[in-house]
Amino acid sequence: MLNDRNWLITETCFDLTRQNHAETIFTIGNGYLGTRGAHEERYSGEERTTFIHGVFDDVPIVFTELVNAPDWLDLNLWLGGEPFRLTEGEILAYQRQLDLRNGLLTRQVEWRSPQGVRWQLTFERFASLANPHLLCQRVTIKGGEITTLEVRTTLNGETDNLNYKHWDWIGQGFVQNSAWLHLRTRSSGIELGAATRLIVTGGRNLRQTDWDTRNAPTLVVTTELKSGEVVEIEKITAFYTSRETTDPQGAARRALQTLPQSAWNGLWESHARVWQREWDCCDVLIEGDDRAHLAVRFSLFQLLAAAPRQDERVSIGAKALSGYGYRGHVFWDTEIFMLPFFTFTRPEIARNLLSYRYHTLEGARKKARENGYKGAQYAWESAATGEEVTPTWVPHPTDRTKLIRIWTGDIQIHISADVCYAIWQYWKATGDDDFMVHRGAEIFLDVARFWASRAEWNADTGCYEFTDVIGPDEYHDHVDNNAYTNALARWLLKTALQVLAWLESHQPQKAAQLRGQLELDENELAHWQKVAEKIYWKEDAQTGLLEQFEGYFQRKQIDLQTLEPRTQSIQSLLGIEGASEANILKQPDVVMLAYLLPELFDEKTLRANYEYYNARTDHTFGSSLGPAIHAIIACWVGKPDEAYEHFMRAALADLEDVRGNAHDGIHAASAGGIWQAIVFGFGGLKLGENDWKTQPCLPAHWKRLAFRLKYRGQPLQIDVINPAAKAGEG
Amino acid sequence: MLNDRNWLITETCFDLTRQNHAETIFTIGNGYLGTRGAHEERYSGEERTTFIHGVFDDVPIVFTELVNAPDWLDLNLWLGGEPFRLTEGEILAYQRQLDLRNGLLTRQVEWRSPQGVRWQLTFERFASLANPHLLCQRVTIKGGEITTLEVRTTLNGETDNLNYKHWDWIGQGFVQNSAWLHLRTRSSGIELGAATRLIVTGGRNLRQTDWDTRNAPTLVVTTELKSGEVVEIEKITAFYTSRETTDPQGAARRALQTLPQSAWNGLWESHARVWQREWDCCDVLIEGDDRAHLAVRFSLFQLLAAAPRQDERVSIGAKALSGYGYRGHVFWDTEIFMLPFFTFTRPEIARNLLSYRYHTLEGARKKARENGYKGAQYAWESAATGEEVTPTWVPHPTDRTKLIRIWTGDIQIHISADVCYAIWQYWKATGDDDFMVHRGAEIFLDVARFWASRAEWNADTGCYEFTDVIGPDEYHDHVDNNAYTNALARWLLKTALQVLAWLESHQPQKAAQLRGQLELDENELAHWQKVAEKIYWKEDAQTGLLEQFEGYFQRKQIDLQTLEPRTQSIQSLLGIEGASEANILKQPDVVMLAYLLPELFDEKTLRANYEYYNARTDHTFGSSLGPAIHAIIACWVGKPDEAYEHFMRAALADLEDVRGNAHDGIHAASAGGIWQAIVFGFGGLKLGENDWKTQPCLPAHWKRLAFRLKYRGQPLQIDVINPAAKAGEG
Repeated sequence: MLNDRNWLITETCFDLTRQNHAETIFTIGNGYLGTRGAHEERYSGEERTTFIHGVFDDVPIVFTELVNAPDWLDLNLWLGGEPFRLTEGEILAYQRQLDLRNGLLTRQVEWRSPQGVRWQLTFERFASLANPHLLCQRVTIKGGEITTLEVRTTLNGETDNLNYKHWDWIGQGFVQNSAWLHLRTRSSGIELGAATRLIVTGGRNLRQTDWDTRNAPTLVVTTELKSGEVVEIEKITAFYTSRETTDPQGAARRALQTLPQSAWNGLWESHARVWQREWDCCDVLIEGDDRAHLAVRFSLFQLLAAAPRQDERVSIGAKALSGYGYRGHVFWDTEIFMLPFFTFTRPEIARNLLSYRYHTLEGARKKARENGYKGAQYAWESAATGEEVTPTWVPHPTDRTKLIRIWTGDIQIHISADVCYAIWQYWKATGDDDFMVHRGAEIFLDVARFWASRAEWNADTGCYEFTDVIGPDEYHDHVDNNAYTNALARWLLKTALQVLAWLESHQPQKAAQLRGQLELDENELAHWQKVAEKIYWKEDAQTGLLEQFEGYFQRKQIDLQTLEPRTQSIQSLLGIEGASEANILKQPDVVMLAYLLPELFDEKTLRANYEYYNARTDHTFGSSLGPAIHAIIACWVGKPDEAYEHFMRAALADLEDVRGNAHDGIHAASAGGIWQAIVFGFGGLKLGENDWKTQPCLPAHWKRLAFRLKYRGQPLQIDVINPAAKAGEG
Repeated sequence: MLNDRNWLITETCFDLTRQNHAETIFTIGNGYLGTRGAHEERYSGEERTTFIHGVFDDVPIVFTELVNAPDWLDLNLWLGGEPFRLTEGEILAYQRQLDLRNGLLTRQVEWRSPQGVRWQLTFERFASLANPHLLCQRVTIKGGEITTLEVRTTLNGETDNLNYKHWDWIGQGFVQNSAWLHLRTRSSGIELGAATRLIVTGGRNLRQTDWDTRNAPTLVVTTELKSGEVVEIEKITAFYTSRETTDPQGAARRALQTLPQSAWNGLWESHARVWQREWDCCDVLIEGDDRAHLAVRFSLFQLLAAAPRQDERVSIGAKALSGYGYRGHVFWDTEIFMLPFFTFTRPEIARNLLSYRYHTLEGARKKARENGYKGAQYAWESAATGEEVTPTWVPHPTDRTKLIRIWTGDIQIHISADVCYAIWQYWKATGDDDFMVHRGAEIFLDVARFWASRAEWNADTGCYEFTDVIGPDEYHDHVDNNAYTNALARWLLKTALQVLAWLESHQPQKAAQLRGQLELDENELAHWQKVAEKIYWKEDAQTGLLEQFEGYFQRKQIDLQTLEPRTQSIQSLLGIEGASEANILKQPDVVMLAYLLPELFDEKTLRANYEYYNARTDHTFGSSLGPAIHAIIACWVGKPDEAYEHFMRAALADLEDVRGNAHDGIHAASAGGIWQAIVFGFGGLKLGENDWKTQPCLPAHWKRLAFRLKYRGQPLQIDVINPAAKAGEG
């Protein structure tokens, strides 16, 4: 790790009015599951969730969602007969801290009970990164007088997703000091085995009782304390699902049986060691800006906490595993925003995430087929199978008899190119030919086939067109010839032909097998070439401006400044129709293209397009995907202060909840964009075929920027000192 | 009661494949709540529900639904350490019986445990009709060897409605041998207090433990048995809600505190006495047809079990309190199908049900206003407030991206006349002037105002028309000038003027107050008269046929016989569009009109319309509301055998599940229709202004038909002997 500062996220006030935001911030995870930072004892209005990768189940309206697993946090204390609850008695001291180095969440409380007894309590928890099936809790209690302590912990299977229940009970039981629970999701039939062990050390006359309440097996331990005596509670929980083993219930029980009597220290050491290795691969240092530095590390922590290390059939949803937002569905957010971080620091994880797209090819083929196209069309929102799970209709926010039609699942087609872009980037960065041969090439070819079948020949213009689409900017739907979409389609078709040529020269057998399997003949390949060459493309020769889509320049001109200050998005202000008719963007579209395919822009056209569209984008309440990208391009056009403003808008989306929606879960795409802004924006890293260079562009007050990554198997450490940094800050 | 036979509904086989149907059949209730016949111990696939009148809460898609209350049935036995479950071990004898005389549900089981121990168990339960807040269970157990017995009962607040949870936990606790639970619905904020007391008598070394698991407080009692010893378990549960008291939790606890140590016998006696009085008001006797007789009594039992006796702000939903179907929403089913039974046997209950419409007038006024009309337009589906809660869109059964638009809430307007029809019938039958003065008149006048404002003047035809409506026959929507709707509208406008005239002569002050309150002037009253006189009306002078709606006779002619045998409705076979284009009816429409307003038909036209539409109605899988009405008119045209066929189709809808949907709950409208078929069809009762007569029309094998009712305060007992009854049956 690059330094010892700026690793701790701290909360010093117990405030239930912002508990859902705090739950998001204090989410911990280990790539197998993620658990929001709810307290051990329960409070009204909480959203205590644990999401396990790949455990989806059917639900009305949004079709499928990650299921809230049994609650492993539950741990309730009766101190001298009084229930420990911070809403009663008096809080004398309170601090909650997430250590980003290792995901240890600690809460220290000094509490005077309603009857006036003073207690010191420390709660700790971590989700083991060394063995992701193990979840560890420890509570240390020091009481102020001779009294009793009762500890109750329920393995609660009655969890719900925003009122909706997914679990059927199969069985439960007790073995010595542990309880187990066996459940199954109601529609998808995924089984879950959970087991929890409770050990209390300290006090006298320790007694354990089991409450065999259905779907809520509970361990109860009572003990008697002397004044000032310390009691330690250790609780270890194991989760397994039928996605990993045929006997999840037995696996969970066995995982606990093999633990030593006191397991915390051993589990902690192996866990912390693995986290140390993670940060050694990817840490970022910013000197001169602690707030930005902490925010960057928080973003990377959340990405690492959600990254599947053992599973290549899952991917990271838009809110990672940290909240109900988007219900765990996977968007282009993963490939375009999050993936570069993994590609360049943890390529093994990137390979898992891309393999998810390989394993869900059948879902993409089904979508293409159902829409009347050939090949593979990736779902705009994807879950267990890759089938399209974008909600078609959602309830109107105010009129309950109306519904809003969501079109992204139908026509936001660019994602099928985005997936391939990420594969290409991964391949170029890692040289993982094996992946390209056995997985990537098939995706490329079947996606190219989709694009060629989707292209519409316009005899009048002599162009292939893509009409009725949504580009990255979602304020404008049902548009024709979106520049981003057309450029990515052209890139995809040409690159697919390159991939095929490469495969034919390197692995002719595999190439032949794929061509046979996909029934690809020369006519079709020639058609791809022809479509790529004749895709509609229009650039203003004088201004260098690309029109975002046909007719964009004629949309109603709105001066964003006249609408400031505002607390809601332009779409909320103008309505769906109103925003669509205006020229304001939800997020970068041409600018996004400039980032992904910079070769299409020279210095002048880059600047022209950035200036034009930057002034017309809803940076504050539009898409959270935008600011990091704008920060990068601002660096590229030499505007570090403007870049910094964009960057901080992204960096504080979660920690300071600048958009007011962090309670739904972290902004995972923004978190990935932040890393890209650091590396490709401020750091100015440029990667060539066999070399690299940097063109840094640091904000004036940053004294130093350093980061680590891997390129073609070689570790790089980039370290930029800013000689012009202003003194006195930091 | 009229005889001692045909009172028992019996199940002799434990069969989980039909458990949901059996749960519906074995529903018990006391007018405050209804509980499906789930077993004390739980089985996979069960739908164990208790619905309390008026306890609605928000839910997606269907807006609001009756909330599944905490589970009061739960009672699990560990016999010698083995859990009692009929899916394990061996069932040596099994009988479940619902006694319709008093709603006692009894299950007798002889069971050999997996370890070979023989047990005799009798489970009994009833929901007290004398004190509807009390729910009583008793279990008698005789064991086959020296062993232990453990009884666990959980007051389970983790219930859901088809996966959707409505309850927030507030608190719970234990007092001596009872547990209590305090909950609140998540959206509507209705509080519920529940308390349950468990007393085990028999055995030695009796011990009680409390499991304080959150939202599932559990009482556990263990005892030791000698071989052949009998143990008796008595469990009494109390429910109160904030709809009745400001302190439901205290009320539930107090209700148990005042009970004697052994409460069953006392509670049973008062309960059975009240049921005896109920049957004395309404029993029906059929000699010569035990199957029909039992089915009729079952229907009346279910209506009585759901009828609110203490609450005039609730009504009976389409499935009463017996299942999830229609989510507890109230339709015209109540007024037109169920209400006559109450009006003529338990007018106090009818008054409560009609008062519900008075208390929901504001909802009806809101609906009229939002639709651009004046006055009061009753919701097609109504719940707590009377606002329209028909789901606007429901998921397509096979294509998950599609939705089906439900139009009944928009345009099935006849319900606003149906409600008044029921008031008029109640008033005529009971002479309850007080109701008409203080509630009925206001409804009549504001509904008349709605109809007048809804009528559309057609200058070409010189008629007032009602276009774009749905009549009773729901296979045809968006039709113009539905005969039923137009006739009821005309009746309503004329009758409203009569009601006003009566009020002005009997209670001039109230009349003046109402006219002032509603701002009714002479112009408006004259307009009502004019509309009533000029409503579109067309009858074929030659055939006497009424056209169901404009253009009905031109719809595609389909011969129903050519589609037999079938197992689904005509709409399922032809699709929504296909059925709409065809001339097949889901249920009687002109025939329904003939039943409600017989003065519009002479003998010839009645027969002509019945014959014509009867041949074109989907009797088997169309609406369950139809068969009873067809049975009545078949009697009126002298066709007892055809009437009997229709009648049995209605009578067996639940008991023999002839439509395959009884698992959703009983067909309450059909149950009410069955009573009307008995009284006004087979019994041929004709009520004059001051007298009555009968024109019976019995099926050949019925030897005798007798029934009791009340007319203008006088008890009547009609007793029809069929001299022509075939011998040898019965």
